[in-house]
Amino acid sequence: MRLFKGAKKAGLPPGTLVHVGDKRTEEVRITLLDYDEDRVEEKTDVTLSACLPFKALPTVTWVNLTGIHDVDIIKEFGEAFHIHPLILEDIVHTGQRPKLEDLGDYLYIVVKMLVKGSLEHDFDAEQVSIILGSNFVLSFQEREGDVFDSIRDRIKKGKGRIRKAGSDYLAYRLIDAIVDNYFVILEAVGERIEGIQEDVLAQPDPSTLKQIQDTKREMILLRKSIWPLREAISGMERGESPLIREGVRPYLRDVYDHTIQVIDTVETFRDTISGTLDIYLSSLSNRMNEVMKVLTIIATIFIPLTFIAGIYGMNFKHMPELEWEWGYLTVWIVVIVLGCLMLWGFKRKKWL
Amino acid sequence: MRLFKGAKKAGLPPGTLVHVGDKRTEEVRITLLDYDEDRVEEKTDVTLSACLPFKALPTVTWVNLTGIHDVDIIKEFGEAFHIHPLILEDIVHTGQRPKLEDLGDYLYIVVKMLVKGSLEHDFDAEQVSIILGSNFVLSFQEREGDVFDSIRDRIKKGKGRIRKAGSDYLAYRLIDAIVDNYFVILEAVGERIEGIQEDVLAQPDPSTLKQIQDTKREMILLRKSIWPLREAISGMERGESPLIREGVRPYLRDVYDHTIQVIDTVETFRDTISGTLDIYLSSLSNRMNEVMKVLTIIATIFIPLTFIAGIYGMNFKHMPELEWEWGYLTVWIVVIVLGCLMLWGFKRKKWL
Amino acid sequence: MRLFKGAKKAGLPPGTLVHVGDKRTEEVRITLLDYDEDRVEEKTDVTLSACLPFKALPTVTWVNLTGIHDVDIIKEFGEAFHIHPLILEDIVHTGQRPKLEDLGDYLYIVVKMLVKGSLEHDFDAEQVSIILGSNFVLSFQEREGDVFDSIRDRIKKGKGRIRKAGSDYLAYRLIDAIVDNYFVILEAVGERIEGIQEDVLAQPDPSTLKQIQDTKREMILLRKSIWPLREAISGMERGESPLIREGVRPYLRDVYDHTIQVIDTVETFRDTISGTLDIYLSSLSNRMNEVMKVLTIIATIFIPLTFIAGIYGMNFKHMPELEWEWGYLTVWIVVIVLGCLMLWGFKRKKWL
Amino acid sequence: MRLFKGAKKAGLPPGTLVHVGDKRTEEVRITLLDYDEDRVEEKTDVTLSACLPFKALPTVTWVNLTGIHDVDIIKEFGEAFHIHPLILEDIVHTGQRPKLEDLGDYLYIVVKMLVKGSLEHDFDAEQVSIILGSNFVLSFQEREGDVFDSIRDRIKKGKGRIRKAGSDYLAYRLIDAIVDNYFVILEAVGERIEGIQEDVLAQPDPSTLKQIQDTKREMILLRKSIWPLREAISGMERGESPLIREGVRPYLRDVYDHTIQVIDTVETFRDTISGTLDIYLSSLSNRMNEVMKVLTIIATIFIPLTFIAGIYGMNFKHMPELEWEWGYLTVWIVVIVLGCLMLWGFKRKKWL
Amino acid sequence: MRLFKGAKKAGLPPGTLVHVGDKRTEEVRITLLDYDEDRVEEKTDVTLSACLPFKALPTVTWVNLTGIHDVDIIKEFGEAFHIHPLILEDIVHTGQRPKLEDLGDYLYIVVKMLVKGSLEHDFDAEQVSIILGSNFVLSFQEREGDVFDSIRDRIKKGKGRIRKAGSDYLAYRLIDAIVDNYFVILEAVGERIEGIQEDVLAQPDPSTLKQIQDTKREMILLRKSIWPLREAISGMERGESPLIREGVRPYLRDVYDHTIQVIDTVETFRDTISGTLDIYLSSLSNRMNEVMKVLTIIATIFIPLTFIAGIYGMNFKHMPELEWEWGYLTVWIVVIVLGCLMLWGFKRKKWL
Repeated sequence: MRLFKGAKKAGLPPGTLVHVGDKRTEEVRITLLDYDEDRVEEKTDVTLSACLPFKALPTVTWVNLTGIHDVDIIKEFGEAFHIHPLILEDIVHTGQRPKLEDLGDYLYIVVKMLVKGSLEHDFDAEQVSIILGSNFVLSFQEREGDVFDSIRDRIKKGKGRIRKAGSDYLAYRLIDAIVDNYFVILEAVGERIEGIQEDVLAQPDPSTLKQIQDTKREMILLRKSIWPLREAISGMERGESPLIREGVRPYLRDVYDHTIQVIDTVETFRDTISGTLDIYLSSLSNRMNEVMKVLTIIATIFIPLTFIAGIYGMNFKHMPELEWEWGYLTVWIVVIVLGCLMLWGFKRKKWL
Repeated sequence: MRLFKGAKKAGLPPGTLVHVGDKRTEEVRITLLDYDEDRVEEKTDVTLSACLPFKALPTVTWVNLTGIHDVDIIKEFGEAFHIHPLILEDIVHTGQRPKLEDLGDYLYIVVKMLVKGSLEHDFDAEQVSIILGSNFVLSFQEREGDVFDSIRDRIKKGKGRIRKAGSDYLAYRLIDAIVDNYFVILEAVGERIEGIQEDVLAQPDPSTLKQIQDTKREMILLRKSIWPLREAISGMERGESPLIREGVRPYLRDVYDHTIQVIDTVETFRDTISGTLDIYLSSLSNRMNEVMKVLTIIATIFIPLTFIAGIYGMNFKHMPELEWEWGYLTVWIVVIVLGCLMLWGFKRKKWL
Repeated sequence: MRLFKGAKKAGLPPGTLVHVGDKRTEEVRITLLDYDEDRVEEKTDVTLSACLPFKALPTVTWVNLTGIHDVDIIKEFGEAFHIHPLILEDIVHTGQRPKLEDLGDYLYIVVKMLVKGSLEHDFDAEQVSIILGSNFVLSFQEREGDVFDSIRDRIKKGKGRIRKAGSDYLAYRLIDAIVDNYFVILEAVGERIEGIQEDVLAQPDPSTLKQIQDTKREMILLRKSIWPLREAISGMERGESPLIREGVRPYLRDVYDHTIQVIDTVETFRDTISGTLDIYLSSLSNRMNEVMKVLTIIATIFIPLTFIAGIYGMNFKHMPELEWEWGYLTVWIVVIVLGCLMLWGFKRKKWL
Repeated sequence: MRLFKGAKKAGLPPGTLVHVGDKRTEEVRITLLDYDEDRVEEKTDVTLSACLPFKALPTVTWVNLTGIHDVDIIKEFGEAFHIHPLILEDIVHTGQRPKLEDLGDYLYIVVKMLVKGSLEHDFDAEQVSIILGSNFVLSFQEREGDVFDSIRDRIKKGKGRIRKAGSDYLAYRLIDAIVDNYFVILEAVGERIEGIQEDVLAQPDPSTLKQIQDTKREMILLRKSIWPLREAISGMERGESPLIREGVRPYLRDVYDHTIQVIDTVETFRDTISGTLDIYLSSLSNRMNEVMKVLTIIATIFIPLTFIAGIYGMNFKHMPELEWEWGYLTVWIVVIVLGCLMLWGFKRKKWL
Repeated sequence: MRLFKGAKKAGLPPGTLVHVGDKRTEEVRITLLDYDEDRVEEKTDVTLSACLPFKALPTVTWVNLTGIHDVDIIKEFGEAFHIHPLILEDIVHTGQRPKLEDLGDYLYIVVKMLVKGSLEHDFDAEQVSIILGSNFVLSFQEREGDVFDSIRDRIKKGKGRIRKAGSDYLAYRLIDAIVDNYFVILEAVGERIEGIQEDVLAQPDPSTLKQIQDTKREMILLRKSIWPLREAISGMERGESPLIREGVRPYLRDVYDHTIQVIDTVETFRDTISGTLDIYLSSLSNRMNEVMKVLTIIATIFIPLTFIAGIYGMNFKHMPELEWEWGYLTVWIVVIVLGCLMLWGFKRKKWL
């Protein structure tokens, strides 16, 4: 994982559309869903020009674009929907923090969507831009995902409140789907942390330390995605914009509560991971203690005994013990008694 | 203890009632208590429909439901008492943070009740939802508990202020009972921490470290339950809702003070536990020092002596000392003097 | 020192008077002092009923009660002076945080008084409750102390401003006496910390660590007593209550400044104590280094020399050196030269 | 890198112009660019007096000065453009924090420009002062740089919005160019941190620790440059000054977002670097463990074996084993079996 | 350095003048400087009564008193200039935090002046009290210093703005002189920290640790002096008092900026010192590693070799190798080859 990327744009004037980020999909796909309480119309893989007629209708129009690397299409969108160049720049520059910008005619909301990641890390963060107008919602994704599928389904089947509500409710549902998905990711992370904790107690090694640090970094990344999102949703809920109708506010408060739950969980995970690091470090010390004890026990027992053997290996002419008949046996007895005494001493010190 | 659970709901539309959490009781029990200053009526194990007539009366009606896993009953409650679907969702989704929501006709209060836990950890946190209307209080518990028993008793016996006061006072008493119970839990935790401290000084081992980390996590959990509760109670006390009458405010301020005392205690416990971790780590170092000293003393005394014995074990033809009559004795004297000198040196260095 | 106590009350209704805390004195003593500019009247060991006539007088009446474990007397006080039951509960429940409560007719102020402690810890914290009415001050202490003696003296001797000023100035003087006493305690703590620092540098052992942790805990306790006191005094000084007259405000600002000085000092002590812990831990490492160096020096010198002696202790038939006339001497020379070389090497590495 | 410099001025009265900082360029260069939508005029290496006529024109005049060590020229600037002496002092005293000062007729903005540094550290921070008047912008740089070149180019070629906009937009573009450059520096720092992380895992040594500390210090420096800049830009954007027109605000909000991204990245870097320090320290422990294991294995295997050899090196008269025909072979067998047993034991303990 | 002193006053009523602090000078000196734009009059070593006539004049009168231990003179000052007793108490009690008090007729400002210290620590903090009236400034210093000399000079020579401005500007200049002096102290501290850093890398020993802790404590002391000063100056600058005229505000903002720079520098120093502590601790570990490696290398090479020598020192009757003609040579070859192999192994492990 590269620590930081995003300098591609330096030196260019503001409003220049340069895609910053990994190109996560080849093709650019535009999907349109136009509905009101009575009818629904879906068009997949359409061009922008096919979408424009719907803009004039009073029905809710949801245009979803997957693949933001094609800046020309984004530019056309900008012209068709009168979007400020700086907003367009933010859409294609994937290094944005989650935020809410109120531009009068429309709200611009940036959210970070978490997607189950590859082997090494638990998730990738992907930028989703939502533009909420009075009767349309534009959403821009980096790559094809399935988080919005259930919403699409419910719209088409006409189930629930969604077909009766306006574009603000649709925008809320998109954000809610993304935040709900955080819980799925958190569950995976939680399981990973528990795995690490077991590893640390069983067999700590540098690779565990690496995992601890990686997870710590992921928590930081998560927090960076959630904290500003909380503020953005709170900004929507406080409702200074007429685009957000009164009836949608309780729902926004609900998703706001969810972001706080996510933050709480992330903080708990961070504390747990820090605790795991403490356990790791102290279990290193424990192992060192264990190694040192083995060395000390062996050395403490045999070094004095070797000294005794050395004494009777001396070649002095006059060493009366050497002549004794039971001298050799006595040495063995002394050696064994001494050894046993020391073992008993270690036992008493609880080293064994 | 699972680190995180709560992803069950992801992908479902808002307002969908899905019970999230452990199913802590089999049966769903509804208890009703209807009273004013003059009369009191209690009904246990009733159905919802038996409760509805009381709603119309001017008396205070307290309906307590134990076992929130049966979402159908909750839904019926919602319809009977006109409760917003998002609130119903929060009632059955036990991952809520403590909070206060003012919905005009009623207040919704989420509190975490602590219940003495099993062997491994000191307590379980359980969600209690309280809905306070102008003349009724609904309370939803995850499982049968005895925290509310004394309140029920006092109502039935007509003792104290409670029979004269309104539903707001009843809601206060429920919250107060839950917060008072925190002190019982804190006392148990405090004793456990003292136990850990004694263990750490007596015989530190990895299991102590595990206990330290567990207690640390419990403190984090407790803090997560209390901090938002403090805000919720403060919100009630500031009294923007007409449902909270003036006379109840001093009581709310009192319970607010209690939550601050709980927070203070939790912070003290956290600091103490951190200090215990420091003691644990430094006592590991101390033990290592002790082991090393033993090794060093033994090795430092006997390695030079063994060298002397080795010298006189050499087989050179011309070693005049070997011929001396008192050579062997001299070696013993040298060995003993050297050994004593070293012991004396260690004594001076305070290693013995 | 018990970490936490205070659960005695759980389950009881609010306003129930239960004494929580250690019973620090046997007898309950009531002292009355009634004065204005012209006259002063003192009564010691009186009953409550003897105090009541003074309440009606326009003079300042100060009733001091020592020993709060007798809840019946407190209850009588409550009735006589029209004190809210929750306030009475706070008076006898010694686990309160310092706080200010404005009840219209009177102010209730809780302060923690520090009393020089026994051998183990530097001080005990004791709860003092002050009730300030328009022409009376009630003070409730856990046990007999001498902090208020100088105030009593000055009133009786009519020295200074106190006889001319009202009950608000008296309440200020009580608080000021308690806060001034903090400096005495801080001085003792400061000396103890300096003692610990010297110990740590001279001869660190686990008992020093214990002392460090104890002092740390005391600092936390002190901070818990002072921080809320600062807020309470600030609340009095901002002067929303008519009970505090304009002329007393500069004095309150002065005592407020003192609390900030106490907080500053406590923070400095905390930082110093943390630094002492670092010194302790690193001096453990230093000692380990020293032990290891001794071992390494001895082993590194004698192990190779013993090997040489071992070589010439072998019993091979054909070992020409053994036949040499100066062989033995040569071995000694080699051994001494090698040993000196190694010593010189250690000297160069600054291990000696 | 000197930790602190800046005392040169102490004792002098306010408004005294003394250049504090390294003299980074020899010559002082003034460049002028005067433009409106229709025409542009550039003058390089001019004197101040040549700039003054343009001040009266309604066109936007940008005067850039490189080399602030010549305080006389700065003083002349001050007189010509009516700049407060304290502002002039700040321009030449390079120890300023980024800040915004509104002096009515003009805004004074201090920004820290980061310049790719020499071998030892990643960047140097250099002070850029911008004075924004109604129709002029003065910029003061410590040395020649190329960050503003692209802006100069776009003005001369008349591309984009810049020629149509006023002096406020030009000031924004200067700040934006400096902030954009931060991303370039961050990318370099990010690569360096990744390099350090690889080093720490591969071969940790004290020089790595030095690098970690240096990078940490750089992060602190960066944060010190960015945090106050964020406030300054926010102050401009809130737009209390009429010098900032409405149309420029979205752009300022955009550059404000960028500063927050920079802060976020710096925080992530700091966390990563702290994690790297943990890895470094624990890999020291790991290596110690490894060393100790080698010592323990060798000593534990050979010390007992040497003892056995020592026993049969004794010179007792009556040692029956010495006479056995297979005695010597038996010793070898015992030695080999014992050695293998120990190796197997170490294997089981996972020390091998 | 005593950690805390300041309990001298406990038990005394408010407004009692007791000098708390070290008596830093023997004699009390009063210096008077009276000036307006046209004339200046200086009187050194005068009595208070000589100063009083100037108070009535419209000119600016600056009375500076050195040596605050003589409380009687302070009391006379208080009476002559109508200063509140609590302010007088603060003047002689040197444990004050920097602060601003607005008493209507005059402002009371406490500042901590840093004075180059003795060998052990870099500086002493000394309390300077400034009382700013409409046409006079009183300053109280603990001992003779030279920080105000340049101001005195400029007044006498009539240079700069100072003679034209009022007493508020003079007070600003005094504060500015004190804050400017902080930079001189910071430079000395910075050099010391760099010295410590070099020591830590070259030859870490416990005395270095002591120095680190001392410098840390100094940083805490500095921060305690500066943080409240920042607030006090900010309070003056916000200008709620008519004693501070509009024209002085930019100057106050300037000195406010300087205090923030001082705070920034102190924070950087703290971070650097913490980093140095990390380096110290890890270099202890490094040295231990080095010691262990030497021991391990020597022991690992010679213990097995000694075992081989021990084997052939056994006295078995039947040891065929002993009879071989080249046996002895073979042993030497084996010993040398084995030794070289091990050295090569250590080289590969990068232990050499």
